[in-house]
Amino acid sequence: MTGTLYGIGLGPGDPELMTRKAHRLISAAQVVAYPAPDTGDSFARSIAADAINENALEIPIVIPMRVERFPAQSVYDEAAAAISAHLEEGTDVAVLCEGDPFFYGSFMYLFGRLAESHRTEIVPGVTSMTACAAMAARPLCARNEVLSVVPAPIDEVLLRDRLQASGAAVIMKVGRHLAKVRRVIADLNMTDRAMYVAHASLPQQAVVPLAEAPETAPYFSMILIGGTDPYAKS
Amino acid sequence: MTGTLYGIGLGPGDPELMTRKAHRLISAAQVVAYPAPDTGDSFARSIAADAINENALEIPIVIPMRVERFPAQSVYDEAAAAISAHLEEGTDVAVLCEGDPFFYGSFMYLFGRLAESHRTEIVPGVTSMTACAAMAARPLCARNEVLSVVPAPIDEVLLRDRLQASGAAVIMKVGRHLAKVRRVIADLNMTDRAMYVAHASLPQQAVVPLAEAPETAPYFSMILIGGTDPYAKS
Repeated sequence: MTGTLYGIGLGPGDPELMTRKAHRLISAAQVVAYPAPDTGDSFARSIAADAINENALEIPIVIPMRVERFPAQSVYDEAAAAISAHLEEGTDVAVLCEGDPFFYGSFMYLFGRLAESHRTEIVPGVTSMTACAAMAARPLCARNEVLSVVPAPIDEVLLRDRLQASGAAVIMKVGRHLAKVRRVIADLNMTDRAMYVAHASLPQQAVVPLAEAPETAPYFSMILIGGTDPYAKS
Repeated sequence: MTGTLYGIGLGPGDPELMTRKAHRLISAAQVVAYPAPDTGDSFARSIAADAINENALEIPIVIPMRVERFPAQSVYDEAAAAISAHLEEGTDVAVLCEGDPFFYGSFMYLFGRLAESHRTEIVPGVTSMTACAAMAARPLCARNEVLSVVPAPIDEVLLRDRLQASGAAVIMKVGRHLAKVRRVIADLNMTDRAMYVAHASLPQQAVVPLAEAPETAPYFSMILIGGTDPYAKS
């Protein structure tokens, strides 16, 4: 009997926005793995802290901070090997994932290495995208509107094309790309429809119209561009 | 002291995929409102059934079943008036929403009528979109991929244009549009990347490659088109 690999979505940050299933599985887990920076606390661990069993073995997956944030794949080779050893011994492993494991999540790197050879279950979570819409009190998309989800690091021309072709849009991972994103949105005359949200659902949350956003943005920030369906207006 | 209007996301269907916050607020609510069909049970109510207090007053918002599923606005005028009366008396009202209230949710019709005049809080939920990806064991989008979310009822030419311009895509509300969507995906040679998911997280869940999907699909079905980022592959 080998163990099950759980990829568990934790939601956007408020521990109460974890699902009941996530809470149950984390509480029962004897082995818990999570991404962690090379200095400072793991955000994923902080969301789940109250659920983690004090006797659980913890496997921090240390991701060196780099500008592009796509770490060397050797980090995941090593983490997958450590997790695999527990699974082979018959112990379940819960991997903690900010937001949802399959929505721009780094869990994909472990999934790609382990899912073919081990029983795997994904527990979906509340994404930062709908959490930001909730905190901004702005419907994301209505009725038959198309929604584009666009990571801010993409090329400026591509970003412009995508936003121009979109009704409603969400721009993820704004961070150091804020100036570029602002410029594109202003060029397209969409600033009036754009809200800026950082750290949704956490005590340090910020929600303002894009025109009033600060000059610098954290990685965990997002810009929502409302659609034009009249029923989606607040 | 007037009451607070809560728009509460319930997640995709499995009651355990409700957030802990949703469960707490629904358990405490003295007045609970939810969409209901004119015959049969309310799906939203069924997700939350175990949390609803037996002494709570229930307000079913009866939506006559029609092909297009955009009900006459008078239904929401009446529901908003009934809810408003409780809020004015100082009683909180919990509105139960399938999935997430601001992700293609009918809650927007109540929000548009009540949010300006009443204290309102939105509790985000797990969307059907990430639940389908979890059940299909397919990452939705990776790293800097753009994701398009496209409701199936849109015009065929527009649907084709959107999918052609997309990496990863999610086609919502497939239902009676399955034949059209299949045709467009086949024309674009994307059938190999497409998964069909119905009733994600419920006992009657179905997950198959699109090529093996049935001839008819329920309203609560979705097609996922995987992106082309190699790290997102399973």
